[in-house]
Amino acid sequence: MVGFVVVSHSKALAEETIRLALEMKYSEFPLVNGSGTEGDYFGSNPLIIKEAIEKAYTEEGVLIFVDLGSSVLNTQIAMDFLDRDEYKLENIKIADAPLVEGLIAAVAMNDTKATLEDILLELKEFKNFSKIND
Amino acid sequence: MVGFVVVSHSKALAEETIRLALEMKYSEFPLVNGSGTEGDYFGSNPLIIKEAIEKAYTEEGVLIFVDLGSSVLNTQIAMDFLDRDEYKLENIKIADAPLVEGLIAAVAMNDTKATLEDILLELKEFKNFSKIND
Repeated sequence: MVGFVVVSHSKALAEETIRLALEMKYSEFPLVNGSGTEGDYFGSNPLIIKEAIEKAYTEEGVLIFVDLGSSVLNTQIAMDFLDRDEYKLENIKIADAPLVEGLIAAVAMNDTKATLEDILLELKEFKNFSKIND
Repeated sequence: MVGFVVVSHSKALAEETIRLALEMKYSEFPLVNGSGTEGDYFGSNPLIIKEAIEKAYTEEGVLIFVDLGSSVLNTQIAMDFLDRDEYKLENIKIADAPLVEGLIAAVAMNDTKATLEDILLELKEFKNFSKIND
């Protein structure tokens, strides 16, 4: 099954997002917090993200949920640091989806049948999804 | 200035989202957590949301950030409960935007010049915004 990583500027925010998403988790797969910095300031750190990706890595791949700005940049740097023999970069993707809403939807659909491509396709639909009707 | 309310299934998640958004807060306006239930289970409660809207209410209006599903429904119920003489419903809107990313962007732009309409327009742009470039 696909593994997930959460990269927010706030480690505590990521922790609470994971806690909520666990309510929708019906299968066994890695879900790892790769947020925050050494010393627990707001921000992110490529080495912390790299370790989280390694921990979350499965044969099906890894999907990374980010909040904004430097979380994206540091995740891209983290991916560059990975040992490419051990971790197939083509199976490691950043989700172009809202952090909380995207993670919850992805966790709910991640079972033995779902591939990384399936989940990415589902998340793409979020672009057209409206929370309200007006 | 516009007041903001955050309605998540998780009170702690909303709290951490607010804490992160405060990093982008340059003006004085209400930013109220209207999440969670009596007894602190996951979920939301129309009466808690109603009180949060009343606390966040300003002449410029209130913008409410929700996560998913019943958070939206309970916010709509809360709005129905409001005293319409005191709280102008046309100035109270649910943001059709991602909880974390939307709140951060809205907090950053909420100053004496920004109207509720301005913020809603800016948040609409999120629909076309991509976190990644591929």
